[in-house]
Parts: sequence; structure tokens; C-alpha cells
Amino acid sequence: MTEQKKIMVIHGPNLNMLGKREPEVYGTATLEDVNRMLVQRATELDLVVEAFQSNHEGELVDAIQAAVDTCRGMIINPAAYTHTSVAIKDALILLDAPVIEVHISNVYKREPFRHVSMVSDVVSGKIVGLGVLGYKLALDALAEMV
Amino acid sequence: MTEQKKIMVIHGPNLNMLGKREPEVYGTATLEDVNRMLVQRATELDLVVEAFQSNHEGELVDAIQAAVDTCRGMIINPAAYTHTSVAIKDALILLDAPVIEVHISNVYKREPFRHVSMVSDVVSGKIVGLGVLGYKLALDALAEMV
Amino acid sequence: MTEQKKIMVIHGPNLNMLGKREPEVYGTATLEDVNRMLVQRATELDLVVEAFQSNHEGELVDAIQAAVDTCRGMIINPAAYTHTSVAIKDALILLDAPVIEVHISNVYKREPFRHVSMVSDVVSGKIVGLGVLGYKLALDALAEMV
Amino acid sequence: MTEQKKIMVIHGPNLNMLGKREPEVYGTATLEDVNRMLVQRATELDLVVEAFQSNHEGELVDAIQAAVDTCRGMIINPAAYTHTSVAIKDALILLDAPVIEVHISNVYKREPFRHVSMVSDVVSGKIVGLGVLGYKLALDALAEMV
Amino acid sequence: MTEQKKIMVIHGPNLNMLGKREPEVYGTATLEDVNRMLVQRATELDLVVEAFQSNHEGELVDAIQAAVDTCRGMIINPAAYTHTSVAIKDALILLDAPVIEVHISNVYKREPFRHVSMVSDVVSGKIVGLGVLGYKLALDALAEMV
Amino acid sequence: MTEQKKIMVIHGPNLNMLGKREPEVYGTATLEDVNRMLVQRATELDLVVEAFQSNHEGELVDAIQAAVDTCRGMIINPAAYTHTSVAIKDALILLDAPVIEVHISNVYKREPFRHVSMVSDVVSGKIVGLGVLGYKLALDALAEMV
Amino acid sequence: MTEQKKIMVIHGPNLNMLGKREPEVYGTATLEDVNRMLVQRATELDLVVEAFQSNHEGELVDAIQAAVDTCRGMIINPAAYTHTSVAIKDALILLDAPVIEVHISNVYKREPFRHVSMVSDVVSGKIVGLGVLGYKLALDALAEMV
Amino acid sequence: MTEQKKIMVIHGPNLNMLGKREPEVYGTATLEDVNRMLVQRATELDLVVEAFQSNHEGELVDAIQAAVDTCRGMIINPAAYTHTSVAIKDALILLDAPVIEVHISNVYKREPFRHVSMVSDVVSGKIVGLGVLGYKLALDALAEMV
Amino acid sequence: MTEQKKIMVIHGPNLNMLGKREPEVYGTATLEDVNRMLVQRATELDLVVEAFQSNHEGELVDAIQAAVDTCRGMIINPAAYTHTSVAIKDALILLDAPVIEVHISNVYKREPFRHVSMVSDVVSGKIVGLGVLGYKLALDALAEMV
Amino acid sequence: MTEQKKIMVIHGPNLNMLGKREPEVYGTATLEDVNRMLVQRATELDLVVEAFQSNHEGELVDAIQAAVDTCRGMIINPAAYTHTSVAIKDALILLDAPVIEVHISNVYKREPFRHVSMVSDVVSGKIVGLGVLGYKLALDALAEMV
Amino acid sequence: MTEQKKIMVIHGPNLNMLGKREPEVYGTATLEDVNRMLVQRATELDLVVEAFQSNHEGELVDAIQAAVDTCRGMIINPAAYTHTSVAIKDALILLDAPVIEVHISNVYKREPFRHVSMVSDVVSGKIVGLGVLGYKLALDALAEMV
Amino acid sequence: MTEQKKIMVIHGPNLNMLGKREPEVYGTATLEDVNRMLVQRATELDLVVEAFQSNHEGELVDAIQAAVDTCRGMIINPAAYTHTSVAIKDALILLDAPVIEVHISNVYKREPFRHVSMVSDVVSGKIVGLGVLGYKLALDALAEMV
Repeated sequence: MTEQKKIMVIHGPNLNMLGKREPEVYGTATLEDVNRMLVQRATELDLVVEAFQSNHEGELVDAIQAAVDTCRGMIINPAAYTHTSVAIKDALILLDAPVIEVHISNVYKREPFRHVSMVSDVVSGKIVGLGVLGYKLALDALAEMV
Repeated sequence: MTEQKKIMVIHGPNLNMLGKREPEVYGTATLEDVNRMLVQRATELDLVVEAFQSNHEGELVDAIQAAVDTCRGMIINPAAYTHTSVAIKDALILLDAPVIEVHISNVYKREPFRHVSMVSDVVSGKIVGLGVLGYKLALDALAEMV
Repeated sequence: MTEQKKIMVIHGPNLNMLGKREPEVYGTATLEDVNRMLVQRATELDLVVEAFQSNHEGELVDAIQAAVDTCRGMIINPAAYTHTSVAIKDALILLDAPVIEVHISNVYKREPFRHVSMVSDVVSGKIVGLGVLGYKLALDALAEMV
Repeated sequence: MTEQKKIMVIHGPNLNMLGKREPEVYGTATLEDVNRMLVQRATELDLVVEAFQSNHEGELVDAIQAAVDTCRGMIINPAAYTHTSVAIKDALILLDAPVIEVHISNVYKREPFRHVSMVSDVVSGKIVGLGVLGYKLALDALAEMV
Repeated sequence: MTEQKKIMVIHGPNLNMLGKREPEVYGTATLEDVNRMLVQRATELDLVVEAFQSNHEGELVDAIQAAVDTCRGMIINPAAYTHTSVAIKDALILLDAPVIEVHISNVYKREPFRHVSMVSDVVSGKIVGLGVLGYKLALDALAEMV
Repeated sequence: MTEQKKIMVIHGPNLNMLGKREPEVYGTATLEDVNRMLVQRATELDLVVEAFQSNHEGELVDAIQAAVDTCRGMIINPAAYTHTSVAIKDALILLDAPVIEVHISNVYKREPFRHVSMVSDVVSGKIVGLGVLGYKLALDALAEMV
Repeated sequence: MTEQKKIMVIHGPNLNMLGKREPEVYGTATLEDVNRMLVQRATELDLVVEAFQSNHEGELVDAIQAAVDTCRGMIINPAAYTHTSVAIKDALILLDAPVIEVHISNVYKREPFRHVSMVSDVVSGKIVGLGVLGYKLALDALAEMV
Repeated sequence: MTEQKKIMVIHGPNLNMLGKREPEVYGTATLEDVNRMLVQRATELDLVVEAFQSNHEGELVDAIQAAVDTCRGMIINPAAYTHTSVAIKDALILLDAPVIEVHISNVYKREPFRHVSMVSDVVSGKIVGLGVLGYKLALDALAEMV
Repeated sequence: MTEQKKIMVIHGPNLNMLGKREPEVYGTATLEDVNRMLVQRATELDLVVEAFQSNHEGELVDAIQAAVDTCRGMIINPAAYTHTSVAIKDALILLDAPVIEVHISNVYKREPFRHVSMVSDVVSGKIVGLGVLGYKLALDALAEMV
Repeated sequence: MTEQKKIMVIHGPNLNMLGKREPEVYGTATLEDVNRMLVQRATELDLVVEAFQSNHEGELVDAIQAAVDTCRGMIINPAAYTHTSVAIKDALILLDAPVIEVHISNVYKREPFRHVSMVSDVVSGKIVGLGVLGYKLALDALAEMV
Repeated sequence: MTEQKKIMVIHGPNLNMLGKREPEVYGTATLEDVNRMLVQRATELDLVVEAFQSNHEGELVDAIQAAVDTCRGMIINPAAYTHTSVAIKDALILLDAPVIEVHISNVYKREPFRHVSMVSDVVSGKIVGLGVLGYKLALDALAEMV
Repeated sequence: MTEQKKIMVIHGPNLNMLGKREPEVYGTATLEDVNRMLVQRATELDLVVEAFQSNHEGELVDAIQAAVDTCRGMIINPAAYTHTSVAIKDALILLDAPVIEVHISNVYKREPFRHVSMVSDVVSGKIVGLGVLGYKLALDALAEMV
């Protein structure tokens, strides 16, 4: 029996509040809803999904490093750290597996500092503004790539 | 019998050369291949796709205007005009239907002027760097949105 | 019988949609209404008005060049091309006749990129934010100048 | 007998020297000529014009505040203060009546610091580079707006 | 009987209109209300308050200079001149007494040019966005400092 | 018996060293002194104060999130994270209660990077440069607001 | 008999007016004169020259694409589009043959925006400021290179 | 008996405090001392000196305008208005007589905003950092020029 | 017997992966190798070395604070936090002991954001681009300084 | 017998190493080869060529000054000094004869600081990226101009 | 007999051409005329003047260093090196004697790069735009200062 | 007998004054002291050191070129030319041997223009702020590298 391929899903700061605040920006689905949807879709694609959320930049770096030898693909929404974290960028460089950056809201309709991403040039691709559907599309894409 | 929903697909300048030059950047699929794939996928989703390519900024504006009353969604890869065209931006503002911006290559790994998009703040979402697969994901997303 | 002086009126991209979309920004008069008003006002001023609209930068350049030997004045609303077109600027430099730049909305209340005009330093004057009335004032001004 | 509508005309610093210096930039009409022309035109339009000039930023602010309850429209040429005065901007915000900003010369053909206006985003419209005729056009426009 | 310590309160341009316009930004208290509140609070703190308002930058400079030898502390809201006045900054440098800069609205939620203060680096402290309560807090602070 | 209103006080990185180093910049009061003073003042105002300090950006985010449902107001001195943390900004956006940003030293007399605050546009108000007295003023202000 | 090598010559917007306007900037030779001179020189060098002019960015892109399989070298003067066109740049990238960019006037003595070229980093070389002689030198250079 | 040539000396804001504050920056001579020295030196040079100081930008503009027809030369130290006043610049442009800009301290050793002068490009010359001696040198220079 | 002087060695984020990834940038020595080499060299220099690595900015701040009273010198490679961390900068300011900043790779050959260091102006010196040898040189330097 | 016209050829710093290092950037021809080619070509054009190379900015200025009265044209490759030397620019301004700036490599494909030339706006024309052939074209152009 | 005080006069690049070229910018006096005038004026002031000119930055640095122990004052016109030379700045820092920077033309009426001086913040004062008279005024000032 | 490896040491402008001026910035060791120390250390490392100092950019370029074929390593402190010299950068590119850039003072604590180095991206490594000890460390490093 072959082992299933694991996809790591990394959620950045404040995403644990998803669906509880600012629904006009982020919608009403909670992070648990998102993770459940991804697990279900992974099953259809014969993949395994593992999700992790933290408000701590260092813990996100730890989690990415831990994925270096265990995962075949990664979906990351670095949230607020997208715009400032060189540490997360440097951790992503360590990965050989494909990574897709996801943003729930259309960051280009928001403040200028949110238009800049420190990680976009070290990921494979990027999906922006399609709500939590963006996560599912990212998983579909990884299924074709891994 | 109900009418099928039409999705307009707009390809910008030099995309008619897709697959013929610079395969290391854009892959080997031609524009015909992309359109054929989208037509087939549309059938599965019970949608109709119409594609248009032009090297002329004005013709792209004309095409977007023509879609105002006839389409339920749009996929647009404005290619080189992404970075400079206020005219295309203003035309997209006229549309009520959802629009998804697609870029085949990861523009964030290329020259800085390609990081800027004039249209990102007037579209619903954006998919970057996933090759021609990005078009299919965009169609899937529109299928859920329209 | 002396020949009447001709005033060329050039309308830039997306102005063919005037009055049909975004009335809160541009009002409800259509481009046909504007042209009809100008023709009528020209008659009162013993002038002839000829109007041209295009979404194509190159066609606007062609039209300006064609006016070099035939017109005594020009009203131009370059719309989206205001902010980017060196080609239209260079064509306007070729004209000896006075040119008045018109913008229907107050561009200074909109996005910063709309505050910059490539053509303002090569026209005689500029009228901004007075709605379609701006066209009539421009015609009145040209009547005094030609 | 109904009361006539009053239009306040505010002239900024150094405009008291109009027509006496630098005729190649500003023409030969003096400020008295301009005011006389406006009074005459106002009569034709059934309006009343009151004009005020000062070299003092504070006096211009005082004058604008005084117009808040007494005028139906304003024409303002803030001259040198156009480019730096937040105080005049803040005073104009207090007005409910329409305001038209006028510049005699084409400021866009002059030094870059003259291209910037602190007040353009708080006025209704703007007329630039049409000489003292610009004041008359502004009055015509206000006649239609008030 | 010992002499009471005097605190000078300086109000910049357009603050004479406080409470009369834009209540959503500045609240409904008038400048007279603010001054009355400060006088009353001063009595409780065994201080004397003298207030001055002007729309004229030069008069504000004159008033600050006049305070050099007579006051033990200053509260200043330079309003529009906050962002541009080197003259007021230079006058404040002449003071040995502590100065507190007050802004009624949260200027950091408004246009970028309002984020910059020419005087913040020559005052003791700064209170922003707490409405007219900010004046009272400034007086309390000065009471502890003088 | 009614429940007392809680005010959360958040101290950012290196503030645990307050009073132990650089007294010429920050004074000699320790963080414990500040917290004790606030507790005492809160009693007078019939409020409850809870204080938290961390050098970890993520722990500060956690603490702000924890306050969302439990506090009626917040005082925050984000210290070094003031200038860089989008994560703290995004957490503060989640709060409905009023927040006052406090800085002990006058940051505008220090390096330019300390003049910029990522959070000022999402708080109610800001008190700068008044030493540890600033915390007390902030508490007084919250007492009036909650 | 061997086939002669073809050199494509592309003239950008407003160059159809060459020699008719602004002789102090561009000289008195017309575009026809330039093309005739190039044809004659080509004969001496055993080359064939084909020239194309358009005011339309899209037509210039079309023409460059058409040259991909038919030409051994290209001379291009993108005129106004030099400074803004990513589409022409992307088209030139498709060419394997050497390309030389020519400007008749010394653009470095003109406005700053004319100092920037979008295409210089994708051509082989560049000749500026030598009048229409620059075209002949470019042809001589291509003769050595192809 | 021929009339003596008049030199106007204009002192900007806060210079009335000269010698009373900040002697380490500006020295101990008062403005009266400076004027007295200039009057005495003028007598030696067979010139007449008239001096004027104001903290009001508008009064400085008035004074410069008044000098247009009565003076043969001007010495101006615009102090704080040096860095911001377009109004004073525009007034100086009205003068035909030579103007020398003087600064007592070396502004280039101070804050960057003091390095910029709005008037340097409309005066004949500039003397900086030589203390009040700079005024005497300016007078000597005007004596040679007028 | 005198106590040996302690040197703290602080390694920033992702340095725990040293030698395991990107050997062409960072070489093949692991962090353990580096620490072992430093311990050995310290023995020769009669110093004691203690090393700490963390991916968490807050833990690095904690560690620096802990060194304030226990160490005689510090070597720090803040890695990714070099470019963004004001918190680490503020912690380093608390130290009286000399600090040397070390970077293994030549950051000036890499992306522009890596050229900027937030900490260079608060350390004694800096060694860049000499591989892990840089740590040994830093230790040698501290041996001379402490 | 008429005297032959002299063309001065000035080679900037490090060009004495031409052909010896970095052949992939500059080719394999040495400076002697270039000079020999130019002498030979000059003979065909009935001109005399004199060449000078120095690594010293001052010597290059001396050489340009010496050419003021003796040369009919100049070819200059200022190499590294292109980007920084105001002294060479000022010396070139002294020349009445035409000057052509030559760069062997396409500087626009290299680092951004090499895109800027201090001298381009004081020369007649510029030839870039055509290898050492650029010198020959420059000589041909001067032959037509002198 | 007491020794006379020596004043060093340093002339930068291209000033050896003074009076021979561009008289409309620099006047008709030659460098020899300037030096002769200064020697004569020095005699009247009981000073000795020694003048030096070079086109070589290094020779100017050498000359400034040589003056460290021998001169009581310095006049320097660094000409083109004014805007770029850190080496001359660093040499001037070595001098204890007062230094006055002189520019013959008004650099503020010329290109922006000439507005910037690398040395103004390390000299005592600066005289600009008063022609060669500026040198004499500088000598007069030094006579008072040494 | 094998030949010893030569290390070239290049000292830039004003370093001949080392130890004689500004000891608070550069210490009291003279350049001769530094060179003597390096010669002695070289002997211990079985290397030969040759040192060269010049205030002339061109002579420094000459010296670097001369080292191309004779040296096995280089230590360079370009001093003032660090921040501006493209010529020295281009000369360093010619070297195959390792080069270490040394700065005696911590340039990051000084003016911003001293933070930028034109040569850091073409050297192997860089040692800053460790006084003249930095030279010795550089020599130790080269001993390991050559």
C-alpha cells in the first residue's frame, strides 16, 4: 500500500478569528470550516492535509521547517506576516516542494502596504481574492503538480 | 431550455505566440490548446466560453465593453497591458460580472515593473504563476460565483 | 461667403459608454447628447464642430494628426490615456491651433494616478470637474481665441 | 423682489500686481479690469459679485469663512498659496456652496511645484491656463450650478 | 500671596469654527466651550489659562513669542499650520516652558499630509484623537510638570 | 452588585527593562511601578486594570485577541513593534472597545523610523512623550469613554 | 542564387510627420527620405530593407511578431512608445535576430521621461542623437552582425 | 544734489528675537544691532538702508511689493519662510533690482528641511553661515552691483 | 581563581538548518560545527562561549536581555530579523558589552532588502561574507576588546 | 596642402585592460586593436585620430581641455566615470566640436547605476552596445558632421 | 616682525578655463585675474594668499591636507567636485581653520544636481552667485574671523 | 624555496592622516603603525604584505590593476571613494584573488551616505567598525583563503 502524499496548510496570525470578525472582508466561514473542507477535498484527490495556525512568526517558521522532509506540497496564507517576514521567506526557500500563497480577500483593494508580499517570489503561484474557495483551488492545483 | 451562461476569456498582447517562444517561461501549450481546454471544461461545468486575443489595447477595450451586456463572468490575462493600461482598467469597471485576472508565469519572480498591476483592484480575484492551469482554476471559480 | 472655422472634439477611451454606466461619477448625459449640445452651441458661435471617439490610442493619434491642417482649435478629453500616452502628447505638439483639455469629473478627488496628466503642459488650458458643461465652456473659450 | 445670489471672488497673493509685471505670463489686464469684467458679466447673469484680494494667508482664510453664510458660490485663485496652504483648504471644506479654482497661466508649463494644488480635491472644478477669460468661464459655470 | 502660574492655550486656523461645521470630525463643542472648560479646570488646578485663536500664522508666532516671558506652560493646536509652519516651530523653540501639542481628531485616520507635524520634535508631548478631552488631559499634564 | 469594567494594558518588547536602563530616555519608574500606579488610579475611577508584557509579537497578538470579549478599553504601548507589526494592527482591528496608544518618550525627537506607527490609524487616540504620566492620562480618558 | 537577408525597419507613432513639423528637433528629411536612403544603402550592403510605420501600438507589435520568422535583423525607433510600451518590449524578446534601437534626436537633452526606454535592455544596441544618420549607422552595424 | 540709492533689508519671522535666544546658533547681536551696523556701513558706501521685520508672511510680501518702485537693491533673510513660501518667491520675481539672500547660521549643518530654499533661484546671490557679518558683506556686494 | 569571561553567541531564524540546505550560499558546516569551533577557540582565548538559536524574535530578545548582566561580549547573527527587527535593536541598546554582528554570506551580493541592517548602528562592528570563519574572527576581536 | 582634421578619442578608466579580462562583456579586442582600427578607418575618411586613455578623472579632464582648440570632433567612452563625473561633463561643455559618447557593452542590460550617464545631455549623440564596432560608427558619423 | 597669516585659495576642476569659455555663466575675468585681485586685497588686509588649481580630485585633497598646519583660513570653490567628492569633504574636516565655500554662478538657477553640495556642512560659510566678487567677500570675512 | 604569497593592502584618501586627526573616530595608530603591524603579522602567517596609499582615485585604480597578476589576496579600505567610485569597483572586478573591504570606524553610526558602499558586492567580505584590528582580522582571513 503506497503512502498518501501530505499537503501542509499554514495559516498566519489572526486567521484563528476567521468568520468571527469582519465578515464583510473575510466571509463567515471559520478556520475550522476551511480546514474541514480541505480535508474532505484532499480525500477526493487521494491526498492528506495537515493544517497549522499560529499568531507567532517563529512558530510559523518552525512549522515550515518541519515540513521540509515530510510534505509534498504546501498552501500558505501568511496573513499579516506576508508583508514583513523575511524569516518566513527564508524558511520557504528551504522547501523543494511546490508552495501556493493564498489570500482570502483581494489585498489589492486594501491599504498599499498590503499590496506587497515578501514571499511571492519564492512560491510557485498565488491565488488572491477568491474567498476561502482560493484554498480549494490551491489544493486542486497542488494535486496536479505533486 | 435555459440559455447557458457565457464566460468571456480575454488574452492580451503576444499571447498569440504562446507555446511558440520562451517555453521555459510560459510552457509549451499554445493559445489554441488553452482555449480548447477551457471549452471542454466549460462543457463539464455547463458554461459557454468565448475567447478573444489581440495585440491592440483598443480592441481589448472594445471586447470588454461588448461583454458588458452579454457575459456572466470574465477571465482576463492582460499580459503586457497589465502594467500600464488605465483604459482596460476603466473598461473593467463597467462590468458587473465577476472578473478573474490570470498570469501564466509568476510575475513576482520577474522584473519589478511586472509586479504592478493596474487592474488588480477592479477584479474579483487573481491567479498567478500556476501555468495554463490557472485558466482552468479561474473557470472553476467563476462556475461557483455565477 | 467665408468658410466657418472648424473645432475638432476628441473623446478618449470608454467615453462611448458615457451616461450608461457610473452616473454618479460622470452624470447621465450620453456622448451623443454632448456632441449635439456642442454642435448647437457652435452654430451660435459661428463655428463648426466635428467629434471623434475611439478606444484606440493609435486612432486618436491619427485623428489629431488629421486635424493639423484642417482645424482652428481642439477640445480633447483623453480619458484613460491622459495619464500614460506620450504618443498623444507628441501628436498634440504638432498642432499650432489652441487645444483645451477637458475632464468631466474632478480627477483630483479620485486615485492619485488620475492627478497626473501627460498632456497638460502642451495644451493652452484645462477645465476639470464641471461635468459636461466643461465642454461648452471650452468651446466658448476657443471661440474667443480663434 | 427676490435677493440676488452673491458670488465671492477670492484673489491670492501678488495678484494685486496683475498686469503690472510679467505680462508674458499673466497678460496685461489688471486686477481692477478683471473685477470690472466680472461685475458686468454678473449683471447679465443676474448675479452679484464681491471681490477680495490679500497677500495674507490668514486674511484669505477669514474671507472664506465670512462667505460661509452669505455666498452661493465662490471663485478662488489662491495663487502662491495654492501649493502650500492647508489652512485655505480647511476653510474651503467649510463651504457648502460650489467653488471653482482658477489659474490664469498654465501652471503645468511651469515649475513642478506649481503642478500641485492643495485645494483641487475640495473644489467642484478647476480652470487653468485660459488667461483672465478663465474667471468669466467660472462665473458662467457657477450661474448654471447655483 | 503667590502669583498663579499661567498656561497659554493657542488655537490655530479654522478652530474658531469648531462645533459649527463637520461635527462628525470635530464634535459639537465650540471653541468657547473648550476655553470655558479649560478655565474651570485650571481653577481646580490652581492655574490660570489664557486662550488665543487666529487664522494668521504671523499672529500665532507673535502670540507664542509674547508667552516666552509670561507663561509656565503652553497647549497648542496648530491645526492646518501643524503640517507646514517652520515659523511656528522656530517660535516654539524659543520657549523654555513645556509645550503640549493637541489634535482633536485622529489625524492618522485622515489624509497622509496630516500625519506629518512640523512641531512634534520641539514640544514635550502630544495628544491626538481624544476629542476636546485632549485639551483637559494636556492641562492636567502641565499641572504636574510646572 | 454590578461588575467593574476591565481595562487591558498591553506593554510591548523591552518594556520589562523599564527604569533599569536608559533612564535619560524613559525615566526611572519600573514597569511594576507603572502597573501599580494604574491599578491605584483604576480603583479611584471604579475600573479594573489588567496588565500584560511580552517580548513576543505573537503573544501580544494572543493577548489582544483574548481581550476582544472581556475588556471595555485598552491601553497599548507596542514599543518596537509599533513601527513594523501588521499582526498587532490586524488584532486591534478586531476590538470594538476604544484603544489608546501610549509612548513614554517623544518618539518624534528620535530616529525617523520611530515616527511611523502601524497602529495609529486603528486606535482611538494617542499620547506621546509625557513619560509614564501618559498611561495615567490614557486611563482617565478611557474612564470618560467607556 | 542565394536569397538576400531582410532587415525590418519599424517606425513608431508620429514619425509619419517627420520633416513636416519641428525641424529644429528632428531635421527636414521626411520618413520617405529616410526609407529611400536605407533601401539604397541596403543595396550596397547586399541586404533588403522593409519599412513599416504606425501610430498604433498593437500594429507595431503585429509587425514585430511577423518579423520573427522572416528577418535577419531589425532597426526600431519606437518613438513615444519607447517610454511606456511593455507590449513592444515583450514582442522584441521573441526575436532571435539582432535589433538596434534608434532615436533621431538626443532624448537626453529633452524631458526626463524621455530618458527612460522600456526596450533598451532587450535590444543589441542603441544609437541616439545622430539625426537620420543614425538609421544608416544601424544598418551598417547590422550588416556586420548578420 | 543726487538722490541716494535705497537698499531694502527684509527680516523674516522670529528674527526680532535675535540675540535674545539661542546665542549658540545665532550669536548675541540683536536685530537693532544689525540694523544699526548696516545703516552705518551704508553711510560709508553712500547708500541708504531701510529695514523691516515681520512674523507675517503677508506683511513680508507687502513690503517686497512696496520696494518694487523705490529700491535699488534688497537684502532678505526670509528665516523660516525660506523653506516654504511661494508667496515671497513670487513677490521677489517682481523686483528688477538685485536681491541677496542671507542666512546667519550655516543652515546646511542643521535639519534637512532647512537646506532647501524656495527663493535661491530667484535671487542674485546667497551668503550663508557667516553670522551677522553676512549682512555687511551683502551690503558691500550690492554697493558694487547697483 | 578568577572567573572566565562569558561571550554570548546568538543565532537567528533558520540558522538551525545551516549546512543542511543551500550549501552554495552558506557552506556545509552545521550550526553544531560552528558552535563547537567557537567553544574550542574560546578555550584558547581563555573565554567561555554560550550559544543560543531561535526562530522566534521574542526569544532572541529574551536571550539578549538575559545577557545584560552576565556577558562580557556578544556575537549576533540576526539572520532574517537583521532587516526588520526594531525589538532586537532595542534589546541590543540595553547591553554595555561590545557586540559584533556577523553574516555568513555576503549579503551585498543578494537582494537589496538584505543590504539594510536595523542593528548595525548599535553594535561595535560587523563582519560579512567570510563564511563561518567570520564567527571565529569576531571571537578573536572580542578577546582583544573585553 | 590642407591640414587634416583631427578627431580626439578619449578612453576612460580600466579600458587599458580591454580584451584582457571579462571577454564575455567587452569582447577580445584590446585597446591597441581598437586604436589601430580607428587610425586605419580615419585614413580612409581623410581624418587624423589621436587616442588617450587614463584611469585618472583629472587627466581625462586635462585631455578634453587640451582638445578644445585642436580638434574637430571627439569620441569619448568615459567608462566608470560616465555615471559620476560632473568634472568631465563640465569639460565637455567647453568644446564646440561634436562629441559622440560610446559604450562597448549594452549598459542597459547591466546594473541600474550604469543606465545613468552624466554626459549624455552635453554630447551630440551616443552609441551603445555594439561592441568595438561602435567606435568605428562614431568615427563615420563624425566624418559626416565635421 | 610677526609672520603674516596665510589664506589658502583652492580652485577646482575647469576653473583654469575661467573667462575663456561660457562668459554668460562665469563672466570674463580669468583665474589669473581672480588670484591677482585676491593677492592685492590680502595685502590691504595684512594677509598672505596662496592659490592652487587642479582638475584632479586627488591633488585637491593633497593641497587641503598640506594646508592643515600652514594656513589660518581657506577659500574653496570645489567646482564640479562640490557635488560628488566625499574625499574633499573628509579632507576639509581635518582643518581647524575656517573655510568658506565660494561659487561664482548661482548654482540654484542651474540643474538640480548642482544644488547639492557635499561640503557645505563642513565649512563655516558659503557665498554663491555673486561672481568673482564672492572671492573678495570671502577674504574679507576670513580677515575678520582669523 | 617556494615563493611567499603576496597580499596587497590598499589605503584610500586621507588615510595618510590616520592617527593625526579625529582620534575619537579613527584611534591614534598611524598608517605606518598599521602597515608595520600587518607586515609583522604576515611574517607569522608566511605571507608578504605590500601597502599603498593615495588620495587619487586614478592611482588607486592603477594599483589595483597592477595587483591583478602579482597578488594572491587584497585588503582594501577605499575610504571616501567607497561611496562613489565606480572606477575602483570596475578595477576590483578584474581581480581573481579574494578581496576584503575594511573600514576602521563603524560607518553605520555616521551619515547615511557612508552606509552605502559601491564595492561591497564585488569583494569577498567586509569588516567594519573594529578599528585597526579589522586589518589584522582581514589578513588572518586571507591567510585561510589563499
